[in-house]
Parts: sequence; C-alpha cells; structure tokens
Amino acid sequence: MDVSELLALLARPDVISFAGGVPDPALFPTEAIRLAYDSILSEPKAAAKALQYSTPEGDPDLRAWIAEDMRRRGARCAAENVLIVNGAQQALDFIGKLFLSTGDVALTSRPTFLGALQAFDCYEPRYDELPSPGSSRGVGDFPAAAPDKPKFGYVMPEFENPTGRTLNQGQRERLLDFADGLDIPLIEDSPYEILRYEGTSPPALLALAAERASGVDQGRVIYLGSFSKLISPALRIGWLAGPAEVVARLALVKQASNIQVSTINQKVIARVAPEIVPVQTEKVRPIYRARRDAMLRALRTHMPDGVSWSEPEGGFFVWVTLPERLDAKVLLNRAVATVKTAFVPGGAFFPDRSGASALRLSFSLGEPAIIEEGIGRLARVVREAA
Amino acid sequence: MDVSELLALLARPDVISFAGGVPDPALFPTEAIRLAYDSILSEPKAAAKALQYSTPEGDPDLRAWIAEDMRRRGARCAAENVLIVNGAQQALDFIGKLFLSTGDVALTSRPTFLGALQAFDCYEPRYDELPSPGSSRGVGDFPAAAPDKPKFGYVMPEFENPTGRTLNQGQRERLLDFADGLDIPLIEDSPYEILRYEGTSPPALLALAAERASGVDQGRVIYLGSFSKLISPALRIGWLAGPAEVVARLALVKQASNIQVSTINQKVIARVAPEIVPVQTEKVRPIYRARRDAMLRALRTHMPDGVSWSEPEGGFFVWVTLPERLDAKVLLNRAVATVKTAFVPGGAFFPDRSGASALRLSFSLGEPAIIEEGIGRLARVVREAA
Repeated sequence: MDVSELLALLARPDVISFAGGVPDPALFPTEAIRLAYDSILSEPKAAAKALQYSTPEGDPDLRAWIAEDMRRRGARCAAENVLIVNGAQQALDFIGKLFLSTGDVALTSRPTFLGALQAFDCYEPRYDELPSPGSSRGVGDFPAAAPDKPKFGYVMPEFENPTGRTLNQGQRERLLDFADGLDIPLIEDSPYEILRYEGTSPPALLALAAERASGVDQGRVIYLGSFSKLISPALRIGWLAGPAEVVARLALVKQASNIQVSTINQKVIARVAPEIVPVQTEKVRPIYRARRDAMLRALRTHMPDGVSWSEPEGGFFVWVTLPERLDAKVLLNRAVATVKTAFVPGGAFFPDRSGASALRLSFSLGEPAIIEEGIGRLARVVREAA
Repeated sequence: MDVSELLALLARPDVISFAGGVPDPALFPTEAIRLAYDSILSEPKAAAKALQYSTPEGDPDLRAWIAEDMRRRGARCAAENVLIVNGAQQALDFIGKLFLSTGDVALTSRPTFLGALQAFDCYEPRYDELPSPGSSRGVGDFPAAAPDKPKFGYVMPEFENPTGRTLNQGQRERLLDFADGLDIPLIEDSPYEILRYEGTSPPALLALAAERASGVDQGRVIYLGSFSKLISPALRIGWLAGPAEVVARLALVKQASNIQVSTINQKVIARVAPEIVPVQTEKVRPIYRARRDAMLRALRTHMPDGVSWSEPEGGFFVWVTLPERLDAKVLLNRAVATVKTAFVPGGAFFPDRSGASALRLSFSLGEPAIIEEGIGRLARVVREAA
C-alpha cells in the first residue's frame, strides 16, 4: 500500500483513518477567506493588482507581517529575511536544489518527515543521522571536509512529524553547538509550532542562532513556516525565514521554478492573517487537544504490553513502537481488511526504510469517540498478531 | 540593467516600457473570477473540499476540461494525459528535473524563451541549437549515444517568445522527423496559442506526434499550456499534456516539489474556463491585434534603414534586429535615460548571451497611441546611435 492508496482510504466513510495528518476542514476560517477574496476582487484597482504577475520574493505586506510574527517568536526578522513559497514543501525542494548535488550528504533525524525525504531524494543525496538527544555521535564523528562533509542538518524541533517529539531549549542549544562545530546550515521545519496543547515553546532555533551570531543575517538557521494547518492548506502559502542573502538566492530559484506564489492567494492571507491567526489559535487548540487526549487515553486503555508511544505536546502525531517482531506494513494490510482502520507504517519515515515495527497515528481528524473506537480496533489487530 | 530592474521600470508611469510581456490586467475576467470564488466558498461542502489538500495530479474536473480542450486542438487527450502545474514555468522546472543532470545536452531554439533557460540552468546542462527552419544541421550532426546524445528539444512553435515566429505545418513535421531520427522527446511550449490575430494555427506538435504514433501515450511530445494570458497569471495555473506514463512520473515530482496546485484556484479555473475561454478569446484578440498593428505600423514609419523586425501572427512579441555594430544593452541604457523607453536586449534569450544587436518588444500593454509614441522615441535613439 503506497501513500496515495493510503490517502484514498481517507475518502472511504467506512474506514477510520489515522493516516492522513491533514487539518480538519471544519475548522478552517471559511467565511473570513470568502470575504477577503470578495473584497479584494470587488475593488477594481486592488483586483487588477491581485490578478497580475508580481515578484518572486512575495507580497510586501505579507512578508512584513510574517517578519513581525517571527519577531514575536523571538527571531528579529525584517521583510527581506522572508520568502513566500507554495507551502513549506516547496521550501524543502528549494533547499535541496540550492545545497544538494548527487552524492552529497544530508543529515536528518531518524525517523524524519516523509515530505523532506521526497523533496531531497530528487537531488540524490546520501543520508546520515543528525545527532539527536542521547546520541553518542558528535562533531568529531563527521567528515569536516568535502566531499563527505554534510551539506546541512534538517530537523522538526516542535511536535515532529512523525514522532511528535519536541526538543527542549538545552537540546536545541546542543544541536546548534553541533552545527557550529561542523559549520553547516540547520533547516528548522516548524509547521505545527502554533498547535501547542500544553506547556510553552522554547525559542526557535532561528532565534537561538541569531542570538549567538548577533543577527538573523549572520545565523545558520533557515526556518520554514506554514499557514496550512491553521488557515488552509489549499491556498498553498508558506514561508522561509533566514539570512537575507540566502533569501535573495532562493528568490532566484523561486523565479526559475514557478515565478511566484499566487498573487491573489497571498493578498487573501495578508488580509486575514493578522486578525484570524490569534482567533484560530484559540479556536482550534482545545479541539485538537481533546483529540490528542482521546488517542492517548485509548492507547493506554486498549494496547497490550510491549507497545509504547510518544506523548506529544502539540501537532497532529503519535508515534507507536510495536514489539520488534511485528511488521507495521503487514499489520496495516490486516487492519484495513479486517477492522477497517488505517495508519502509516513507520518505514516511510526512514531514509533506508528501516523502522518496520513502528507506525504513525494522526489524531487531527475525527471526534474523540471515533478515535477511541479506531484505537480499540487497532489494539485488537496488534493483540492478534503479537 | 537586469530583469528585475527592467520590471521595476514597468511601475514608473513616466516610462513607456515594451519590456514586460505580461497580459493587460484591464482585460482579465475579474467579475467571473470573483463570482467563482464567492460561489465555491459560500457552499459549505464545496468550500471544505476547496480549502483542503487534494491530489498532485490536479482537480479531476479541470483535468477533464483541459483534455477536452486539447482534443479540440487535435490531440486526443484523456484526463490522465494532463498534469496541473503552478503555471507553465513549473512544467519547465519539472522537465529539467526529470531529464537533465549536470553536463547533459538540451536543445533549444536560438534565441529562446528566457524562462526556459532559467528553469533548465538549475540542472546545469550544456545547450545546443535545435535545428530551425533553414538550418543546415540534421540528425546526423548530433551524437546518437550517451553521454552526448541530447535529452530533449525545447520549442515554442506558435508566436515564439521572443521572436514572434510561428512554425508552419511542414516545419513542424520536419522537427518531428528530427526528433524521431534522434529518438528524443520534444517539449512544445504554447502559452500564447489562443492569442492568434490572423490566419489559422497548424496542428500542435502534440497532435502531429500522436498521429504518427497512433496515440498521445505513444507520442514523444510534452505540451505546455497556460491560463495566464487569457484569464489571469496570478492564480498560477497551467498544465502539461503528454503520455500518461510521463504525467504519472511528473506527478511524483509535483508531490515532492510542492504537493499540489492551490485547490481553490483550480476549482475557480475549472468553473470559469468552459464559459469564459471562448468569450475572453473573442474579447481580447481584437484589442491585442490593434496593439500589434500599431507597433508594426510605427516601426515601418519611424525606424531607419538597416533595422528589421518580425511580423508575428499572434502573441505579445516583435523581435527587432539592429545593424550589427549596435549593442542593444548600450541602447537600452540610453533609451531609458534620454527618452524614457524600455525593452529587453536580445542577449537575455541566448544560452551563450550572444545576440547583442537584437531586442525584444512587447505590445501587450498600452494603447496604440502610446505604442506609436514609444516606437518613435526608440527610433530616434537608434538613429542617433547608428
């Protein structure tokens, strides 16, 4: 079963799917979006601008607002530190294009975000593991000279997809020490940052690196952000924030790749974001939190001994580790066929497709009662297989 | 003066710019677009779908309508022969990604579309010239084996940007003979196809190749189309049509690059295109035709002997050849400084930046009287320099 077959299951009303990892469309600010399109297109001058080509860097108002928002997160960005992209996925593609050639080494967590692997794979790198908390490898264990010196490290420090893991401030500082020691860029992918259900966020890697280097422009972090989880993924608007020089180089990549992000969609986001981001944050957090709580509760209630799972402070994902002899791919086929319940087998998130006995569950869709029912079903299949 | 400086001139009301090559926003079907956004976002079920993630291949209704439209152009496409992209520029990037590695050979016209060079440049190919009408080189003049065998030929057969040239049916057949002889794909980039101001279009290369191979799936042509010139470039919607197997491979590239084109924008185009494409075609053709006529008339009236130009049957561009001793870059600086008139120097359109004594004029923006005034000014600068 491949990813598109998994996604097709989402459309089957008889299947409980924990595979998707997409936001709940019932929570989108549809009316605010409708009004924004309508008001921009009703005013002839604004409409003529909104329907015409614009610049690869992005809409000036939107860049300025994002810079302001990044300052609220502790990173002193100006508009020229921000590039608007067609979703954070496009930033991953551009980073691959800028940094990677065939055989170059990219460092990622293991497991890591599937979309990052898909984006980087096009540039045919070799993968190695970015040291994670508890890792015994350090700067000295990596080649410091070309051609084997790593080109960058990629990490999702907040509610990682797929593990749900968050790095605390000390772990972030140690990751920066590592990148400083090796003198490589760090890619900080943070699409879920605003979806925190408990506790408080440590400063972004971008902010910590800027502090060390006395400025975002001197720092080594490229931050990726997204409106997809809070407002809508269908407008395809995300951003990248980092040193102005990198942003300028990536704007040329942007122009060559697809000229610019949709002008009208950028203007809609620029119009709704300042008011709607705080409102949406308050609105969606308790709803997703209740779904997370339902999933964790159901796992505790139903799963047999020998199965463990992460307890994420935010985001959409719980990472489940099965007894080693169980293969999550086999389990998926059985779960779909016998109890009509789906998830993503863990192998998809490893560059070498290892991780056979792990799986990813998303709690973003579905009421708590449905989640509980689905976890109960999965637990039956695990128990039968164990 | 680089391209972004040239584009900045477009915004200066005191400068007459023939540099842009963008459609006139006064001609966009703004009200139809506004109504489409409004009606989709007013209906809760449609809105939830339009604001959610969808598939990398594109909206099913839009793919089906484009396939129908391609059949009207003589190419028997089905929906699975169509991939929706963020403007035809993105298709160029994907073609570079699929076919080109460092040092590979890409064949293009000389001059050729600047955006194609920008897209392909990222994959570091070598360029050679695709045989054009009157060329003395044939199949035997190109290596037939790797690593020097060309990966594809790229051509804009209809109202080429920058030359305005159209290939007739015989020339298209000879181009296909060449591609057959070398057994390479042909990329047919046709964003202006609908903007024909006189005569009739020969069949698309896609249609001719499908006829030879008894089917689009067996043919060697990948066709690129665009809604940017007729409806709006700001929704960033174009398409690629070709063998279903290539479309399926490029859908994976699409997913890794930026997942999918904006769902809502695709649904808006799917809703307006069937009604608005024929209406817009009738509306904009006479307006752009009058601008072309004004430019050609003014060139005949004002330009000194020794200057020649193309007479395009459609599109946005006239290609002007100056006496060989004149450098269009020097002329541009003089024209902007002394008579506040701009164009794009020809060198931008050659892989090797030759073509110093040619320049590209766009007639897409501005009333005939302004065009006449601008050409008069340019002619003065040419006369002074000659």
